[in-house]
Amino acid sequence: MVVMTPEATEAEIAAVKRRLEATGVHVLVLPGELTTAIGAIGDPEGVRELGLEGMEGVDRVVPISRPYKLASSELAHPEPTTFSVAGHRVGGGTTFCLIAGPCTVETREQTLAVARTVKAAGASMLRGGAYKPRTSPFAFKGLGAAALEILAEARAETGLPVVTELLDTQHAEGVAAHADVIQIGARNMQNYALLEVAGKLGKPVLLKRGLSSSLDELLMAADYVLKEGNPRVMVCERGIRTFETATRFTLDLSAIPWLKLHSHLPVIVDPSHASGDRRLVEPLARAAAAVGADGIIVEVHENPEAALCDGPQALYARDFAGFAERVTAHARLEGRTLA
Amino acid sequence: MVVMTPEATEAEIAAVKRRLEATGVHVLVLPGELTTAIGAIGDPEGVRELGLEGMEGVDRVVPISRPYKLASSELAHPEPTTFSVAGHRVGGGTTFCLIAGPCTVETREQTLAVARTVKAAGASMLRGGAYKPRTSPFAFKGLGAAALEILAEARAETGLPVVTELLDTQHAEGVAAHADVIQIGARNMQNYALLEVAGKLGKPVLLKRGLSSSLDELLMAADYVLKEGNPRVMVCERGIRTFETATRFTLDLSAIPWLKLHSHLPVIVDPSHASGDRRLVEPLARAAAAVGADGIIVEVHENPEAALCDGPQALYARDFAGFAERVTAHARLEGRTLA
Amino acid sequence: MVVMTPEATEAEIAAVKRRLEATGVHVLVLPGELTTAIGAIGDPEGVRELGLEGMEGVDRVVPISRPYKLASSELAHPEPTTFSVAGHRVGGGTTFCLIAGPCTVETREQTLAVARTVKAAGASMLRGGAYKPRTSPFAFKGLGAAALEILAEARAETGLPVVTELLDTQHAEGVAAHADVIQIGARNMQNYALLEVAGKLGKPVLLKRGLSSSLDELLMAADYVLKEGNPRVMVCERGIRTFETATRFTLDLSAIPWLKLHSHLPVIVDPSHASGDRRLVEPLARAAAAVGADGIIVEVHENPEAALCDGPQALYARDFAGFAERVTAHARLEGRTLA
Amino acid sequence: MVVMTPEATEAEIAAVKRRLEATGVHVLVLPGELTTAIGAIGDPEGVRELGLEGMEGVDRVVPISRPYKLASSELAHPEPTTFSVAGHRVGGGTTFCLIAGPCTVETREQTLAVARTVKAAGASMLRGGAYKPRTSPFAFKGLGAAALEILAEARAETGLPVVTELLDTQHAEGVAAHADVIQIGARNMQNYALLEVAGKLGKPVLLKRGLSSSLDELLMAADYVLKEGNPRVMVCERGIRTFETATRFTLDLSAIPWLKLHSHLPVIVDPSHASGDRRLVEPLARAAAAVGADGIIVEVHENPEAALCDGPQALYARDFAGFAERVTAHARLEGRTLA
Repeated sequence: MVVMTPEATEAEIAAVKRRLEATGVHVLVLPGELTTAIGAIGDPEGVRELGLEGMEGVDRVVPISRPYKLASSELAHPEPTTFSVAGHRVGGGTTFCLIAGPCTVETREQTLAVARTVKAAGASMLRGGAYKPRTSPFAFKGLGAAALEILAEARAETGLPVVTELLDTQHAEGVAAHADVIQIGARNMQNYALLEVAGKLGKPVLLKRGLSSSLDELLMAADYVLKEGNPRVMVCERGIRTFETATRFTLDLSAIPWLKLHSHLPVIVDPSHASGDRRLVEPLARAAAAVGADGIIVEVHENPEAALCDGPQALYARDFAGFAERVTAHARLEGRTLA
Repeated sequence: MVVMTPEATEAEIAAVKRRLEATGVHVLVLPGELTTAIGAIGDPEGVRELGLEGMEGVDRVVPISRPYKLASSELAHPEPTTFSVAGHRVGGGTTFCLIAGPCTVETREQTLAVARTVKAAGASMLRGGAYKPRTSPFAFKGLGAAALEILAEARAETGLPVVTELLDTQHAEGVAAHADVIQIGARNMQNYALLEVAGKLGKPVLLKRGLSSSLDELLMAADYVLKEGNPRVMVCERGIRTFETATRFTLDLSAIPWLKLHSHLPVIVDPSHASGDRRLVEPLARAAAAVGADGIIVEVHENPEAALCDGPQALYARDFAGFAERVTAHARLEGRTLA
Repeated sequence: MVVMTPEATEAEIAAVKRRLEATGVHVLVLPGELTTAIGAIGDPEGVRELGLEGMEGVDRVVPISRPYKLASSELAHPEPTTFSVAGHRVGGGTTFCLIAGPCTVETREQTLAVARTVKAAGASMLRGGAYKPRTSPFAFKGLGAAALEILAEARAETGLPVVTELLDTQHAEGVAAHADVIQIGARNMQNYALLEVAGKLGKPVLLKRGLSSSLDELLMAADYVLKEGNPRVMVCERGIRTFETATRFTLDLSAIPWLKLHSHLPVIVDPSHASGDRRLVEPLARAAAAVGADGIIVEVHENPEAALCDGPQALYARDFAGFAERVTAHARLEGRTLA
Repeated sequence: MVVMTPEATEAEIAAVKRRLEATGVHVLVLPGELTTAIGAIGDPEGVRELGLEGMEGVDRVVPISRPYKLASSELAHPEPTTFSVAGHRVGGGTTFCLIAGPCTVETREQTLAVARTVKAAGASMLRGGAYKPRTSPFAFKGLGAAALEILAEARAETGLPVVTELLDTQHAEGVAAHADVIQIGARNMQNYALLEVAGKLGKPVLLKRGLSSSLDELLMAADYVLKEGNPRVMVCERGIRTFETATRFTLDLSAIPWLKLHSHLPVIVDPSHASGDRRLVEPLARAAAAVGADGIIVEVHENPEAALCDGPQALYARDFAGFAERVTAHARLEGRTLA
């Protein structure tokens, strides 16, 4: 829908109409009391590319259709996407996926101990960082390939599939060899080169929302992965940046029912990174279960006070079984069982 | 804590020290490797008023203490505040307060019908707008005094206490005569004249968070009411303004556990205004119950499509009993029963 | 423009059409490839009030027309509004209005000294706070009526018209008796009762943008004043709240050319409150002059380090003449002379 | 500065003190009236990594020192950084760098024509996109290597150095072979792998601020480049994401004087991407010159209505000479001449 200024001339209206018709769309001119609007039916992507906002006499272009395609439940895929990760069912409304583990792999012992703890509490998958994105170049960046080996050992022992972040296209092969789910971090949500590589690795992808990305942009980023022929994508709400600094980010739980209305993809919530504060993680995890998320991803540590990274948000391993039980109770009320 | 610039001179440091000492606080100079910091112990309000940021050689002033007082669980009141509204207990962690009713009082019949519906479903209080703040001066502004009469009749019939908004100090007497709880709307959270009047009316106050107010500011606004000697204040999270436009506002559910850590006041959640979309209201209401809120306030209408105000976010009256049951189930998991 | 969901039925589309036609607007149904859109021509306010978003089958309502009326250059008033304040011309593109003075009136001597300084440097008007809105109820709130007397004396001596804030409808008479321009503060931009009172006082109004108000909302707030028959309204950009905390607020200078495109009202910029830091005030004041603002409002103090309020953002009185000259040079490049 | 909760025990305070001392910093315990604060002097990075926020009894950790190092004028480099790009001096306060060209290289003819136009108007450098990051995977992504050849030809003919974006580490060699300045786009500001590659290419880097990145984060991202031994970094403000949707982004001009206070790096402003609307580009470019920026980067097209990308924000080539003259006039007032 192209809205003209009140002073737009007949010639300017005709020019816009001609330009639209040249792309093959059907055009309708809607004269209003004060301004004329021009509707275009068909090929919204083509119309968007025209850049009509800059034509003489045009005030605004108001998109009517949504800008994402493959991730849309309306355009592409009315039924919820479901898939299995090593036997754990993701998506579809009957399971709740509990992904837990250390922020970063620090040692073999630490990782195995946490893996056993979360396995015993019923976790569905093990998370753990091998390569860590750090805001400051002088901070600890993870053990890299050695961490991937440790995660593989933890999987072998516990049977838990492993979720780990792909940070750089150069690590793609190594990460794909050891991970069951490829995580794309929030800071890379619009790193399109990385999204395309991730889409080609043949593994499920956990795509985190950028910290100031709109939900439309999150689903367009998912389109980058989906168009590589990989349908196994989960999106993850992990807090957005707002004016409020009392919490590290603002967890946008409204996003979950909105995504359920407009997309078929499973939706995971990360309350650990959103809040940055252990004391808020359980309440927010319960809320995620109640709001209808398909799962959560949380950080756990035997001794968070000695953690090399993000200790303040890590749950104590000794508290994890109780945490899992209390959160799962809310998921059960919504008809879900642990994946 | 006053942080000096790296180039600050001894004389500038001494000047800051002298200025602080003149207010009677205890001062500690902390020389760092690159910058000197100066700590002041005692009377944070007095130090804040000094405006030290503008002194020569000062880079920043970093407040260590929180800026609110009476609303603080740390400074004023370690135990949760609880009180009763016509026999319905608010606060304290064992009850869940279900406040429901029409956005605005339109007719006697509509209001009574909704009041009966919400009463039957177990609601704790009846909400209804008599005076409505409207962004556009050309929109419907409520029935005013006539609406207060209708609400009084609904209370008489159902026994439900009434929550209604005070918009203007001129209406204070009329609103106080008919309301059991005085609501202060988000747009007036920093209308200090109104807060002081509300604090003097001798009724519980439901104080909504401003749409871009920080949690610190919300508690300072509560201080305005509390300092009038009125301890019966509930604060209400109703969505904040962020870059995300998919939902009308972003409901900040992290605020609830944060407020529980730092304040003794009961916390209510308004999922109707936050989302502006009926389809999101129930998931967010469940999340509010799971995250630990003391209650919710929601809008209900017999025929939302004919509502004079905010119809799209109103729950259908015919669905309300089921809604109440599903939300309350999550509150029960947290050890709460309907107030 | 009403956008239906892809699954909307013929009956749902017909129901929306009927509902729109009942309000008397002209309705056009636009079948798209995936979704149907329904356009309504005429009476946008009426359509907005219908709350169509909640009807079955409706996905979204996309407003085509702007929501403000009287403040619009498109709907109401194509020529820029200009008026005179005690001989100083505001608006129209040929003058630059330099409004300066203390944040708050502290003493007679302080106020007269600053008034003389800003008069000597060519200021157009004197600002000064008599009643101050304070976030904390324990902070200094201004001298009130005594301050109004001092401002009147400063005007009598210097001839400068006085700008001061109206904070509460109870002070309206006193403020109107002494002020030449009534300021409405950012926190009260949506205090509609106050806007209507301000509109009736027969004085020009300086309306500050709320710290999270959109430009549409600012112009709707101006509509509240304008509809009282008072055409002499200036709007004022004073910084919005964003995620960035390095500066107190984010001064939105893009708003100035946007407002010039869409409104006929004069636009003033307040760099003092936006930045909260004297070191940023001059660069931002120069930018305001270069971007096309009709003026600025800044704070000046003889001894900012002893100011009772907002000292860190006050310019030193001794530097003001140079400041005024450097800022005015940029305004002159844009064809403006000091008002 | 570690702030304890009011209930923190002596043992908890001692534990924090011990943990800090183990890192070698000097520790000072500051008992306050209500809470104890613990100051650490030395190695802020080490302290930040400890994650003390999660220790028992700790309420908050308040950083006193800034988190960036090499980009800091306070820690690393008190004098402004200046360098030359093919004879055009960047930084240092006496030049204004006018970077202009098409959003994207579409054809040889279009690029050469624009290059001649901007050269004739006095531009310092030619911008042009070879690889374009696009939010939707279905949009035009640039000509790639062929575009680099065209840009090289434009440079050969006009003598203008070329600024183009590096989007993917795979393109590094090709981009470095043809570009005089490597641009890192806003969406990649925290793509650390890319920053490190860019730092090693031996070319000046133009680093755009992420659309929700704080200024602290921008300077930390600059640290990633600087630590590779490349001192020639310009940072670029290009608009941040806020609640305001009237303009595409909110250009944060307060950032320029703030960056001048805290960093030694040259600062460029991009008014084209910030506003997305040609009608706002010139006023914002003038404001950038007046606020003290070291230059601007703008988009120019012979026929914006036929541009493949971002036409609405492109200046008409036929208007560019006048634009350049009007903007430069404001830079001259600040003592700068075209670089």
